[in-house]
Amino acid sequence: MAKISPGVGPRYPQVVVLFGATGDLARRKLLPGLYHLSSAGFIPGCRIIGVSLDEMDVEGFRQAARGALEEFSSRTLTEPDWEAFARSLDYVPLAAGAGALRAAVDRAEMSLGGESRRLHYLSVPPSAALSAVRLLGEAGLVERSRIVMEKPFGTDKASAVTLNARLHEVFAEEQIFRIDHFLGKEPAQNILAFRFANGLFEPIWNRNFIDHVQIDVPETLGLGKRSGFYEQTGAYRDMVVTHLFQILAFMAMEPPTALEPAPISEEKNKVFRSMLPIQPHDVVRGQYTGYRDEEGVDPESETETFIALKCFIDNWRWAGVPFFLRTGKRLAEGQRIISIAFREPPKSMFPAGSGVGAQGPDHLTFDLADASKMSLSFYGKRPGPGMRLDKLSLQFAMHDTGLIGDVLEAYERLILDAMRGDRTLFTTAEGIERLWEVSTHLLEAPPPVRLYAPGSWGPKSIHQLIAPHAWRLPFERAWRDPNRHGG
Amino acid sequence: MAKISPGVGPRYPQVVVLFGATGDLARRKLLPGLYHLSSAGFIPGCRIIGVSLDEMDVEGFRQAARGALEEFSSRTLTEPDWEAFARSLDYVPLAAGAGALRAAVDRAEMSLGGESRRLHYLSVPPSAALSAVRLLGEAGLVERSRIVMEKPFGTDKASAVTLNARLHEVFAEEQIFRIDHFLGKEPAQNILAFRFANGLFEPIWNRNFIDHVQIDVPETLGLGKRSGFYEQTGAYRDMVVTHLFQILAFMAMEPPTALEPAPISEEKNKVFRSMLPIQPHDVVRGQYTGYRDEEGVDPESETETFIALKCFIDNWRWAGVPFFLRTGKRLAEGQRIISIAFREPPKSMFPAGSGVGAQGPDHLTFDLADASKMSLSFYGKRPGPGMRLDKLSLQFAMHDTGLIGDVLEAYERLILDAMRGDRTLFTTAEGIERLWEVSTHLLEAPPPVRLYAPGSWGPKSIHQLIAPHAWRLPFERAWRDPNRHGG
Repeated sequence: MAKISPGVGPRYPQVVVLFGATGDLARRKLLPGLYHLSSAGFIPGCRIIGVSLDEMDVEGFRQAARGALEEFSSRTLTEPDWEAFARSLDYVPLAAGAGALRAAVDRAEMSLGGESRRLHYLSVPPSAALSAVRLLGEAGLVERSRIVMEKPFGTDKASAVTLNARLHEVFAEEQIFRIDHFLGKEPAQNILAFRFANGLFEPIWNRNFIDHVQIDVPETLGLGKRSGFYEQTGAYRDMVVTHLFQILAFMAMEPPTALEPAPISEEKNKVFRSMLPIQPHDVVRGQYTGYRDEEGVDPESETETFIALKCFIDNWRWAGVPFFLRTGKRLAEGQRIISIAFREPPKSMFPAGSGVGAQGPDHLTFDLADASKMSLSFYGKRPGPGMRLDKLSLQFAMHDTGLIGDVLEAYERLILDAMRGDRTLFTTAEGIERLWEVSTHLLEAPPPVRLYAPGSWGPKSIHQLIAPHAWRLPFERAWRDPNRHGG
Repeated sequence: MAKISPGVGPRYPQVVVLFGATGDLARRKLLPGLYHLSSAGFIPGCRIIGVSLDEMDVEGFRQAARGALEEFSSRTLTEPDWEAFARSLDYVPLAAGAGALRAAVDRAEMSLGGESRRLHYLSVPPSAALSAVRLLGEAGLVERSRIVMEKPFGTDKASAVTLNARLHEVFAEEQIFRIDHFLGKEPAQNILAFRFANGLFEPIWNRNFIDHVQIDVPETLGLGKRSGFYEQTGAYRDMVVTHLFQILAFMAMEPPTALEPAPISEEKNKVFRSMLPIQPHDVVRGQYTGYRDEEGVDPESETETFIALKCFIDNWRWAGVPFFLRTGKRLAEGQRIISIAFREPPKSMFPAGSGVGAQGPDHLTFDLADASKMSLSFYGKRPGPGMRLDKLSLQFAMHDTGLIGDVLEAYERLILDAMRGDRTLFTTAEGIERLWEVSTHLLEAPPPVRLYAPGSWGPKSIHQLIAPHAWRLPFERAWRDPNRHGG
C-alpha cells in the first residue's frame, strides 16, 4: 500500500479508545478505516483499545478485528500490515471498569513514548455514550482527549440540551466531535471548494438568481435489522436533522473569514439560526407498505420511512427561496443530489415556440456519490436551421480526471480530522440544538404518514408540496446517458 | 435524403443569380450548398442562373456544376436529386449583357409561377461586384431582390464608404447581405443562445467579473494559390475586421430587445461604436518565414500573415476589459476558440499552498469548430485528505448529445437566411464602416512585421502584448484529453 506524504496526519501519536468495538459500525467502517489509516502511514503512532460489553481477551479482539477486515475492508489485507495493526490492538471489557481502562491507556501511551493524544470513539447508542463519558471522567481520561459521538444527537430540543449538558459536565465543547459521515464524503467538501475557490458563482448564489434548491437523497434499501431502532427514530431524525441539514448549510452559508474550522462552524450555525421553523403543512411523511409487518415495528406504526419538506432560510441571501428536501427508504433509486434551479432570464427575447424554458430551469447539480459529479444545464441551440433550443449540459465527473488515487473513505477522513482537532466537518452543540428547535412544530404535530409503494418515489402529495416546481428526480437526468454518448 | 419540415425555408420561390458561378467559392461551397438546400426540400421552388466571364451554354454549366458537386459535396449525390437540380440551372455569360440576364430571370420566374424573389449572389471580387450591381440595375433586377456580398467590404474606411455608396445607388441597405461565413457556423449562433436563453451568466457577463477575453483562431494552412490576393490584404483585413470582430460583437453585445435581425444588428453596431481605436502599439504583426518566397508575393513584403492585438470596448459593461484577438497562417494548430477568463474570487480563504489560482483563472470557453464544444473550468477539491485544489472543468460537446442530424453548413444556413430576409448573421454598412474607422491608426502606421517560424504560435512579442495574462493556447487545454478519459 502506498505510503503517504507527511503533513496530513495528526502531529501526535494517538491512543484510540473504541467503545462499541465489536458492534456493527466498528466492524464495517471503524476497524477497516483505522487499519487503512495506520497501514497507509497517516497515523504512524497509534494504539487502539477496544471496549465493549463482550467478555474477551486481546487475542479474541484481534481475531474479531481480523474477521471484520476480511469481511469489510475494501483494501487488500497484507500480512506485514496486519501484524503491525494487530500489535496496536488492545481490549478492555466494559465490566473491568475505569481502573482497567486507565491502565490500558497508560500502557499504550508508554509504548508510544513521548506526548500523545487520545481519541475516544463512542460507537454506541446515546444512553451508552453517556455511561462511557462518565467512565472516561472517572478514569481521568479527559485531558489530551477528544471524543467522537455518533448520531442521534438527541431526539428533540429538550433531549439534545440535556445530552449536551451531560457531555459538558465531563468534556469541553471543543473536545466533542459529533460525526456526520455525509460531510466526510469528498463531494460534500467539494461544495466548499467549488463555492469559495471560484469567483464565478458567488454573484448568482442568492435569492435574485436562484429559484429553489433540492436536496434529494432517495434510498433503495429497506431497514433490514434496523427496524427496531428506526421505529423510534424515523426518516426525519435519522437523515434530515443530521445529514441533509448539514449539506444544506454548506450550500447556503456565507463565505467564512477563512476556510478553517471555527469560521466555518460559525457560518453554518448562522444558517441554522436563520432557518424558519419547519411547518407541518410543509412536510409530507410517508411509510412504505409492508413496513408495519417488519420485526420490531408496531403494527400501527406512524413512523415515517420517507420525508419530503420545504424549508426556508430567512436571511438576506435566501429569503423566499424554498429548499426542498427529500429522503426515504425503499424508493425507486438510490441517489444523492443537490440541485440548484436558477431563475429564468428576466425576458425571453426568443420567438415563441423556440423552446426556452420548455424543459425546466437551468440547474447546477452536485452528485454526492462517492466520486464527485457535477452538471450545469443550459439552453443551447439545436444544430440546424432556425433557432430551436434544447436543454443541454456541461458535465464534470471526477472519475474522468485521473485524480482519484487512494481516496479516504468518509469515516477515515473524519477520524483523521478528529485526531488533528479539525472540527470543520463536525456539528456543534449550538447547531444541533437549533436544528431541534426549528423542528419543534413538526415533532409536536407531525402530519399523518401516507403509504407509498416500495420502489416508487414516495407518496403522491409530494408533487403538491413542490408545485409549481417539480422534483428533479426521476423526471430529469443530470448526467449524460452513456448509451447516448457519441451518438 | 431526409425531407425537411416546412417553416424554415423562404416563403417565396427563389431565382438565384450566381455571379462568379464557375469560381472557386461557387464550386466548393455555393453550388454544393444550393444542391443540398434544394434536394433536402428547404427551397422547393428555386431556379439558379449562373453568370461568369466564361463562355459556355447551359449544358456546359450543368456539367461544371456536376463536377463541382462530385468533387466538393459532402452529401451523396443521387440521380433523381441531381436531375431535378440540373433542370433548375441556367447560364448567362456576362458578355451577353443586361437584356440576356433579364430574359433568363423572366424565364425562370415564369417557370416558377406566381410571385418569386431574387437572390443575386456576388461571388466575385469587389470591383467585379460593383460591375455586377450596375448590370443588375440596368437589367431592372432590383425590386423583389436581395444581393449577397462577399468580403472584403472595403480595405479601409474611405474605400468602404465609397463601396457602400455605390451599392446604395442601386440597392437599399435592407437588400444587401454582407456574408460572414464564421457567423453561419452553429457554434457562433450558440453564443447568442447561451447568453440570452439562460439567466445564469448575464449577472457575471461584465467588467466586474470578467478579467479578459481571448478570441483565438490560429490556422495551420499556408496560403497556397491565394498568396497573390492575400499580399494585398493580410491577416487583419482578411480575418479580423470580418470574422473576429463579428464574433467579438456576439460576445459583448447587450441583450437585444428581441432575437430578431434589426435589434441584433443595432446591438452589434453599438459594440462597434464603443470600440476604442486600435492602437498600433497594442498590435503584433507577424509573417511566417518563407512567405516572401511564395508566388505573387513581394520579396520585401510587409504583409502580415499573423496578427495579435488588444482592443477595448469602452462602455459600461466592458470598460477596462482587454479583448485579445489572434489569428494567423501556418501556426502550430488549427483552433477557433473564445475564452473568457473570470476574475479570481475577491479573497482567498484557503490556506496557503492549497492551489487556488495556481493554474490560472476560471475560464468559460467556446469552441467554434463545426460541432459546438464548451467548457467551464473551476477549482475543485482533489480527492484525498486535506484541501488541495486542482483546476477541473465542466464540459459540453454537441457531438455527445445525439442532436446533430443533417446540419446545414455555414454557407447553406446563410443562403437560406438571406432568402428569408433574415439579416441577423450579416454585417451592416454602418458596422463595417465603423470597424474600418477604429482600424485607421493601425492601417496608417502599422508596426513592422516580425518573422515567425512556420509551426510556431507566432512572434515572441505576443507574450508581452498579453502580459500579465497568458495566451490560453497552447498552454492550457479546454477539453478533456480522451486518453485520460476514464483514467
